[in-house]
Amino acid sequence: MSSDCGHTVRLSIFGESHGPGVGVVIQGLPPGEKIDLEDLYAFLARRRPGQNRLTTTRKESDKPVFLSGVTESGGAVITCGTPLCVFIENQDARSGDYAGFTEVPRPGHADYTAAVRYRGFADMRGSGHFSGRLTAPVCVAGGIAKQILSRKGIQVGAHLYSVGPVQDAPFPLMPTAELLNAVAAKSLPVLNDSAGEEMEREILAASDAGDSVGGIVECTAIGLPPGLGSPMFDGVENRLSTALFGIPAVRGVEFGAGFAAAAMRGSQNNDPFVFQNDRVETTANNHGGILGGITTGMPLLLRAAIKPTPSIAQAQQSVNLTDGHSETLHIAGRHDPCVALRAVPVVEAMTAVVLLDMMMEETDIGDQ
Amino acid sequence: MSSDCGHTVRLSIFGESHGPGVGVVIQGLPPGEKIDLEDLYAFLARRRPGQNRLTTTRKESDKPVFLSGVTESGGAVITCGTPLCVFIENQDARSGDYAGFTEVPRPGHADYTAAVRYRGFADMRGSGHFSGRLTAPVCVAGGIAKQILSRKGIQVGAHLYSVGPVQDAPFPLMPTAELLNAVAAKSLPVLNDSAGEEMEREILAASDAGDSVGGIVECTAIGLPPGLGSPMFDGVENRLSTALFGIPAVRGVEFGAGFAAAAMRGSQNNDPFVFQNDRVETTANNHGGILGGITTGMPLLLRAAIKPTPSIAQAQQSVNLTDGHSETLHIAGRHDPCVALRAVPVVEAMTAVVLLDMMMEETDIGDQ
Amino acid sequence: MSSDCGHTVRLSIFGESHGPGVGVVIQGLPPGEKIDLEDLYAFLARRRPGQNRLTTTRKESDKPVFLSGVTESGGAVITCGTPLCVFIENQDARSGDYAGFTEVPRPGHADYTAAVRYRGFADMRGSGHFSGRLTAPVCVAGGIAKQILSRKGIQVGAHLYSVGPVQDAPFPLMPTAELLNAVAAKSLPVLNDSAGEEMEREILAASDAGDSVGGIVECTAIGLPPGLGSPMFDGVENRLSTALFGIPAVRGVEFGAGFAAAAMRGSQNNDPFVFQNDRVETTANNHGGILGGITTGMPLLLRAAIKPTPSIAQAQQSVNLTDGHSETLHIAGRHDPCVALRAVPVVEAMTAVVLLDMMMEETDIGDQ
Amino acid sequence: MSSDCGHTVRLSIFGESHGPGVGVVIQGLPPGEKIDLEDLYAFLARRRPGQNRLTTTRKESDKPVFLSGVTESGGAVITCGTPLCVFIENQDARSGDYAGFTEVPRPGHADYTAAVRYRGFADMRGSGHFSGRLTAPVCVAGGIAKQILSRKGIQVGAHLYSVGPVQDAPFPLMPTAELLNAVAAKSLPVLNDSAGEEMEREILAASDAGDSVGGIVECTAIGLPPGLGSPMFDGVENRLSTALFGIPAVRGVEFGAGFAAAAMRGSQNNDPFVFQNDRVETTANNHGGILGGITTGMPLLLRAAIKPTPSIAQAQQSVNLTDGHSETLHIAGRHDPCVALRAVPVVEAMTAVVLLDMMMEETDIGDQ
Repeated sequence: MSSDCGHTVRLSIFGESHGPGVGVVIQGLPPGEKIDLEDLYAFLARRRPGQNRLTTTRKESDKPVFLSGVTESGGAVITCGTPLCVFIENQDARSGDYAGFTEVPRPGHADYTAAVRYRGFADMRGSGHFSGRLTAPVCVAGGIAKQILSRKGIQVGAHLYSVGPVQDAPFPLMPTAELLNAVAAKSLPVLNDSAGEEMEREILAASDAGDSVGGIVECTAIGLPPGLGSPMFDGVENRLSTALFGIPAVRGVEFGAGFAAAAMRGSQNNDPFVFQNDRVETTANNHGGILGGITTGMPLLLRAAIKPTPSIAQAQQSVNLTDGHSETLHIAGRHDPCVALRAVPVVEAMTAVVLLDMMMEETDIGDQ
Repeated sequence: MSSDCGHTVRLSIFGESHGPGVGVVIQGLPPGEKIDLEDLYAFLARRRPGQNRLTTTRKESDKPVFLSGVTESGGAVITCGTPLCVFIENQDARSGDYAGFTEVPRPGHADYTAAVRYRGFADMRGSGHFSGRLTAPVCVAGGIAKQILSRKGIQVGAHLYSVGPVQDAPFPLMPTAELLNAVAAKSLPVLNDSAGEEMEREILAASDAGDSVGGIVECTAIGLPPGLGSPMFDGVENRLSTALFGIPAVRGVEFGAGFAAAAMRGSQNNDPFVFQNDRVETTANNHGGILGGITTGMPLLLRAAIKPTPSIAQAQQSVNLTDGHSETLHIAGRHDPCVALRAVPVVEAMTAVVLLDMMMEETDIGDQ
Repeated sequence: MSSDCGHTVRLSIFGESHGPGVGVVIQGLPPGEKIDLEDLYAFLARRRPGQNRLTTTRKESDKPVFLSGVTESGGAVITCGTPLCVFIENQDARSGDYAGFTEVPRPGHADYTAAVRYRGFADMRGSGHFSGRLTAPVCVAGGIAKQILSRKGIQVGAHLYSVGPVQDAPFPLMPTAELLNAVAAKSLPVLNDSAGEEMEREILAASDAGDSVGGIVECTAIGLPPGLGSPMFDGVENRLSTALFGIPAVRGVEFGAGFAAAAMRGSQNNDPFVFQNDRVETTANNHGGILGGITTGMPLLLRAAIKPTPSIAQAQQSVNLTDGHSETLHIAGRHDPCVALRAVPVVEAMTAVVLLDMMMEETDIGDQ
Repeated sequence: MSSDCGHTVRLSIFGESHGPGVGVVIQGLPPGEKIDLEDLYAFLARRRPGQNRLTTTRKESDKPVFLSGVTESGGAVITCGTPLCVFIENQDARSGDYAGFTEVPRPGHADYTAAVRYRGFADMRGSGHFSGRLTAPVCVAGGIAKQILSRKGIQVGAHLYSVGPVQDAPFPLMPTAELLNAVAAKSLPVLNDSAGEEMEREILAASDAGDSVGGIVECTAIGLPPGLGSPMFDGVENRLSTALFGIPAVRGVEFGAGFAAAAMRGSQNNDPFVFQNDRVETTANNHGGILGGITTGMPLLLRAAIKPTPSIAQAQQSVNLTDGHSETLHIAGRHDPCVALRAVPVVEAMTAVVLLDMMMEETDIGDQ
């Protein structure tokens, strides 16, 4: 019924955009894992708003406060293994901007559906619990998961694959850790910087037109062992897709060749097996590192489609829910012209949480 | 860890392609629901192989046997409310066709990943538990769910949206029950019959070339109430995507405008609200009937990308897992040149099961 | 909402007492585990009715048929790792004995509550899905789990701790595998055979009086590693109790000293720690092998209270649900005078399933 | 793997005894429910320590801070329907008292098992996440659940059924709301005040002897509709027992006659049905309001056995985990001589949370 997910590593997310703050309880983390706070803050900074003219001007320090589940020792923060709760205070909330949307719902937003679902009782200031602000605790969980995974030799990285009609280069067949780190360090996380510049122009053009623009995030994970996952409903795709659709504005999720595979012949789409680098690999990665719901050991490859920010400055048509009369809506407030940009670390985070969850279940009783 | 899904209405699927049979236990069905067997058989026939030259020549009567959870009264079968188990015997299995794939895995199949995951113990004849044959029990569950939903005024329907490069027309803004029934009755379930003829040519061309071809299934549900679903991880998209990726060969799932939304401006993608037909509607359906994970009351709209059948007659490159040497693989056996065709009722079935599951949770304590 | 349980190893139980049969789908079993059929049949025989004058005269061969999830090789049955389904046909059902109980509910039975819950649609012949017959598939799952656990050095055993006022000796501080095997081999599984003889007299006396009698089953598991389980809601007690209350007629579950601990002082109840046998042990086992929800490595010790069989030959007062008038009820049919006797292997089975489930989760990512 | 529970109304509990604080995220609450803060504080005060000489002298104001999920309007706090997070700061923690227990585990405590389970990384000051302090957020959730249930005509109440050998009177066949309120208002919540005085003497005698004493809590719920729950693993007993064993120190749970039923004949234990007060009732309540896992509409009746506080002033034997040598342990710190006393509202709270969870699922699609 709500905002929790996971099997072994489980998130329970809470908070509203204009309430006291947002946070997450993470159940099932392994004990004894060091959390490098500088690294975590750096990861959160990639999602944080107010950093450049491509994002909303809302300013939040997004400092995570650990309420449980860790001990400190010599400057290091270490997981206890017990439930870890992190809280992030809301600081720069301007609720006045949102008065009235409960009466006249914004197109593309959850104002109308929340009104029906919660019978008018949800706190929808700043979109409330539906806000992109809820991705801050997702990134806390994901940032911690990424650190734990990296000690297992698994690295998760993403880039902005497209903005509107502008395409970045796709990930290469075998992305390296260096490549993922280099992309993450960019203010516009792309592989091809000239595509990035074009994306920037596209975003600013949309913004100047009082509009917004969509985009696609491509994410990979390298270093996964083969054999992770299960057929039917507990495969890598099932668990990742249900988590990724938890990110506001995601409208589609695909793995490997994805929708493009639907236009292919089998002889094109099937990836030949080879034995190289002391293991079984494939010479292409249309399968995105997953066959039958189970990892092959090739890089995991997925894409998430992010719709254009529904809040735009242009006038829009809506209805007044009190009596059904039509109204022309003008949305003030501060908004990202392209949420796909800030979704890049969120997709990484969500992917890392799911992969850590699956890795916790990896060892089979029969192996021992 | 495997082949069960759902919250209130829960499936536990079992069986292997060349074992005794396949089946499903459905927990949590409402009691007192009539199952119209003729209607159910007709639905299952839409998925059944061996019916025309576009599908595999494997012949299975696919007669579901009810092992529990129903009573019969005057020719009618009625749900008890207790767990319903259905078993479908395998009849036309030719296991000899599959000898050897545990040593030399077929590209695009789960042979390699299953070997790692199950350490060589899975029964992979005919792809075993990974086989498309496991969609037969999914269709039993879905056929029952469709009947229950239809009594609530909800109808689920799908069509073959594309085959390779050939596109059908998309669903209209407001599909009618008549349209959905008419499409379901066709041997090639499309909206535009001339597109259907072209698809047929495309499938036969692939087949003649010893190849296969992918496709996209578009599915809709009409009559859903607004307010169904929840934000973050328990929304309509989360629950549908995790179920739909349980169908073998699905590589992507999108809702409403889906990936196309990523190329749009917000002013294009946002659907204006209007008050008409005594309720709140939208003048377009890029949102696919879902905002914030919650239904708007507009038609649910989703698409699933189906990869080309990995089994093709052409020679393929693989490795022998015993020592890593390269082998050229020739796959015999009977295979669908385009599994997307038979996936149409499966996508309907899976969607219906999830929607029934969600409808069971609809009523809120506060309403009473 | 129903008859499934477990986290990693998950059961989905189905069937009715007088329908085609009963069965279970087991998801998440480890692959490559040999199922010794003779051993399994011998275990099932311990629960099977119709064996002596202490149990119901209903005769069922209870032959389990494997519908999926196993392969046979050289006479041995081996788990695939994929969902294992077992079906047991009903053979000796006499439904005529049960006509009328939907109108006049039997005291102590689920006739009335099932009528309300399933609005009259449940198949309640022979108590339907509420019947003790549903413990047959539980024993199949438990018999398999016991075999897998024994390869890990874990043995589960139980005895009839009491029948009415007659008490057996309790398990010793450190039960041996030999003791557990010896008890299991007895037709009346007790530690003290003279207590067993007295129990037999008590059961026959109840039977002769047209009555029934309750009892307590005590169960232990030896060889468990320390550190299994978690605090609060995922501890050994939580998972075992929720499973054990799934056995019909269980009215209470306690661990270690259980309810007796409530009458103790702390100085009596606390078990002193000692280092012996190369490990940490305790000199008493009031804690039942569990502290804080987590195993200590001492024998797991639990007791389940089984109420007297509600079906008795004596006349009883009930009401006719059609109009509320009082009726005197006479129950025919074949019934166990003391279900606690046949519950002994069922408690073992349920305990084994839960422990296997927990063992599957044992290995922690941090250990590797 | 940890500290979350529930199906529709779900708790995720976090915190350590000597960390920043303790709290809970509650997912799935119905929207629009008023939380009466005075009533909630009064309920929490029943569990709070430091109030009289029968409990620990640790003083905590236990003021719950709402971090999400509510709005305030005219002094009233109203649920939004979105996740509700409550945090309670730790104020009077004296961690010095607990140094050393990671090396020399306290008998009856989780020190040893936590050390194994969390490999030495758990924060075990004041028993950390295993502390009775974690019942404070349980009471917040339960206090809210009790208020919502009471609007449905359901009232949950409990009393101290026994302390050591001293017994209170049992609940009458049909407890009234007045009776439950009157008991809740007492500093020693008993039905028979002279038994209460004897209990007080028993507790003080244990305390004076540097010892502690166990007890039993009996809990009831009146006003439940018949038909709530399901057979096998989703019945009232399954869900309540798994939750109640989440309360530290609970060693046994029984329903209705419970373990006493094991000593009865069926003719004694079966409760005759009658039609009175315009509904089906029973003339006794050995079944505790549950048959076949489903409510009958009679009062729910359960008992939880609480072991004596393991922390006692007397010297105890333990081992030093570093090298296995025996040590005599002296426990300082502040402790309840009888935790059963403060467990009374906790059992009420846990019961209320589970019943609300089940009530949220009550309405069946077929009824509409």
